[in-house]
Amino acid sequence: MKSTRIVLASRPTGTPEPENFRTETVELPAPGEGEALLETLYLSLDPYMRGRMSDAPSYSPPVAIGGTMVGATVSRVLESRDAAVRSGDIVLGYGGWQTHSVEPIRQLRRLDPAAAPVTTALGVLGMPGFTAYSGLLTIGRPKSGETVVVAAATGPVGSAVGQIAKIQGARAVGIAGGPQKVALLRERFGFDAAIDHRAPDFADQLAAATPDGIDVYFENVGGAVLDAVLPRLNEYARIPVCGLIAGYNATALPEGPDRLGLLMGMILRKSLTVRGFIQREFAAEQFPAFVEQMPQWLADGRVRYLEDVVEGFDHTVEAFQGLLVGKNVGKLVVHVAD
Amino acid sequence: MKSTRIVLASRPTGTPEPENFRTETVELPAPGEGEALLETLYLSLDPYMRGRMSDAPSYSPPVAIGGTMVGATVSRVLESRDAAVRSGDIVLGYGGWQTHSVEPIRQLRRLDPAAAPVTTALGVLGMPGFTAYSGLLTIGRPKSGETVVVAAATGPVGSAVGQIAKIQGARAVGIAGGPQKVALLRERFGFDAAIDHRAPDFADQLAAATPDGIDVYFENVGGAVLDAVLPRLNEYARIPVCGLIAGYNATALPEGPDRLGLLMGMILRKSLTVRGFIQREFAAEQFPAFVEQMPQWLADGRVRYLEDVVEGFDHTVEAFQGLLVGKNVGKLVVHVAD
Repeated sequence: MKSTRIVLASRPTGTPEPENFRTETVELPAPGEGEALLETLYLSLDPYMRGRMSDAPSYSPPVAIGGTMVGATVSRVLESRDAAVRSGDIVLGYGGWQTHSVEPIRQLRRLDPAAAPVTTALGVLGMPGFTAYSGLLTIGRPKSGETVVVAAATGPVGSAVGQIAKIQGARAVGIAGGPQKVALLRERFGFDAAIDHRAPDFADQLAAATPDGIDVYFENVGGAVLDAVLPRLNEYARIPVCGLIAGYNATALPEGPDRLGLLMGMILRKSLTVRGFIQREFAAEQFPAFVEQMPQWLADGRVRYLEDVVEGFDHTVEAFQGLLVGKNVGKLVVHVAD
Repeated sequence: MKSTRIVLASRPTGTPEPENFRTETVELPAPGEGEALLETLYLSLDPYMRGRMSDAPSYSPPVAIGGTMVGATVSRVLESRDAAVRSGDIVLGYGGWQTHSVEPIRQLRRLDPAAAPVTTALGVLGMPGFTAYSGLLTIGRPKSGETVVVAAATGPVGSAVGQIAKIQGARAVGIAGGPQKVALLRERFGFDAAIDHRAPDFADQLAAATPDGIDVYFENVGGAVLDAVLPRLNEYARIPVCGLIAGYNATALPEGPDRLGLLMGMILRKSLTVRGFIQREFAAEQFPAFVEQMPQWLADGRVRYLEDVVEGFDHTVEAFQGLLVGKNVGKLVVHVAD
């Protein structure tokens, strides 16, 4: 079986460009014992992938030059060498940026297409949804009446953070880029306040939208949004840090003055908790509760989601470039095959 | 009864200077119902007092211009208007920088001079000791075999942090300024490694002393020590932040580049927990355990302490200036009266 794949041709400096990638078609090996041959139906595109393109120290090793870009996939089983999955099953795997893959079956999760659209396994019912759920409930711990702020709030993490915060009785303030997304925050996701970070008076709008300060800031963007949030934080505020997309394409530190000590001083004076996390840390303990609870919230209409489906594997690189500047609206997936 | 007191004459810019203070002698009012008239025996000098001289936003309001500088005191009761304390009792209070005070009796804690030297109520058995105990055990949570690093390690907080870390089975690395203090860290406090932050190769020495990285950094200084610690932190490291003395006299942010985003990136990539705290947050829950356990550790010789006693109330300002640049060795107290 042949697979068409996108490999990392060189490490991007700043914005990833088409020349940083190369499309190849290779013959896949036959699946061995405990493996399956899969056809990719949907490929997930997520901000963390920018980190894998870089060889700066990180929580996961980088993709090698010439290696296939990694990524979660929803796939159809074409051939299985283990009774756990059968030909024709739809599974969640980690096939990467390619049309076909051979994967260890123990790393696959069977999906029930009758229970929910299979793409939700890449978004609201998958890693992004669990990132929101575990980070907000374990680190953020919003109490009833508190104010929760999240940016990239139409995205799969941010929209889930806001809606789960509401379920906890908190006030949810969402930040997004552009009037269309801001309207979605209020109308589709039920945020109590929605702010456009591109507005010239963004910091003033944020202050007006958080009259009682901010108790939880779910950090997934960094940059100018963080700058506006910091002075609004209340004593004992919690900041789960799951991403800093605003800086992912940066090639140098911003010009001074150096505010590292300023941030430490705020952490001290306000008794802040700033806690970085990757959702897998909480998987063993909380994923079972998540897969129980989140589908119910979806069924009840208490959590809604948006997907941005790009048609065709050959648009993958362009779609990923757009993700880093917020062109997608909702969870970005590439539709590779039917 | 007359009291001689040191009031804040003006807010210091940078290092507090003698002209920022004024010594006055005033007639105290007679103690009212529920109050006591006290004679200060020992005045505690602590880094947090620098914050009270400034009107920048903080966790406590500043001392007013013309107001008496605040501070914990060990005092003798001269006159009591409540049965809870009697004339002649020795009490821990918050009399401030003055020779006599009138204080609400419910804010006083009676001390037993037979149980421990009364000055320990200002240090190892008081606020600094409890800062170390609560911050290390609640936020730092060192596990057996982990590496704990603390600076200002001959001070009352740092020395307690190192020794409590050892009791938990962790490896304790202490940082101090100058060879005399470094020798004390090993010989008196039993740190596993001791480093002089004034050494030109300080960062290299810290790396050599932390071959398995750093799991807990108890932050009380900031500045160059923090810079050297950051790259040594392990995944899931915890940073209780109780002070940043290196920056307390700063009048402007340091020159760039701006490393605020760099720090956030480290927090993300290493899943760090950075948590500011003031010991009073933990007092209700943990002070009872502390007053039970810490005296036992002292009695067992598992925790030792050093005091730096300055003779005479008129040396208070000079002693406080020295504290901010590390001239004291151990807990700094002013001996005001016998």
